[in-house]
Amino acid sequence: MGSYQGLSRQVKKMELKFENELIPAVIQDRRSGKVLMLGYMNQAAIEQTQSTGWVTFFSRSRQKLWVKGETSGHRLQVHEVRVDCDGDALLVQAELTGPGCCHKGYKSCFYRKVTPRGEEVIAEREFDPSQVYGQTGKESRS
Amino acid sequence: MGSYQGLSRQVKKMELKFENELIPAVIQDRRSGKVLMLGYMNQAAIEQTQSTGWVTFFSRSRQKLWVKGETSGHRLQVHEVRVDCDGDALLVQAELTGPGCCHKGYKSCFYRKVTPRGEEVIAEREFDPSQVYGQTGKESRS
Repeated sequence: MGSYQGLSRQVKKMELKFENELIPAVIQDRRSGKVLMLGYMNQAAIEQTQSTGWVTFFSRSRQKLWVKGETSGHRLQVHEVRVDCDGDALLVQAELTGPGCCHKGYKSCFYRKVTPRGEEVIAEREFDPSQVYGQTGKESRS
Repeated sequence: MGSYQGLSRQVKKMELKFENELIPAVIQDRRSGKVLMLGYMNQAAIEQTQSTGWVTFFSRSRQKLWVKGETSGHRLQVHEVRVDCDGDALLVQAELTGPGCCHKGYKSCFYRKVTPRGEEVIAEREFDPSQVYGQTGKESRS
């Protein structure tokens, strides 16, 4: 396994495929391996993510760059950015500064399991969202 | 942490948000935690994934349902399907039957790191794609 072609250290120019100027970015906790969230980046968000070291998305609802955690303080420090075989998806290995990534108070946005009967919460809340975002406030994540 | 609200076992009806009838699905190896790929599902793909237990996408290039591994035999057996807070992304915990998920011969489709100078391969090949897909064959993954 893996012996017929060694690890290539060749660096090629990267070509990303955007759709409507966006590319989905999966965020994974670099220590636990937990998938924290999925967001979308445009070219500017990718550049800002790389230059600042903080995960930055393009908010589709607000139509502007969105530094994850700019409201909550629960930011995502970039460790590594990976790209998939087709160049149309990113995987960011990151470190979460704060108790949870999700604006609903959970570590991961994927805190619900889909069952034949509907959805079921499978995680415990790490923080009270009303104390972080305010009673009505909410950090958009799309 | 997590004490103010216990684990809810309440099951609610699930509402998914599709965009152009599709929802992105992140596939994670349930044992290693490795993110294997990102694909897209429509309602029929979700239903087939759940009823058969094999990850099924909607191929955007071929405009039809696509059982991952139908060409290579490297299928993805579903362990659990999760949904994110906004209901617009899925995370599938799965078991890979075969040496690699990626049609380029790697375990994960995210086998390249993005560096300031370009892309760099950071994994070793697990199999020879030409022996699995043929010299010209390729399993579309989008």
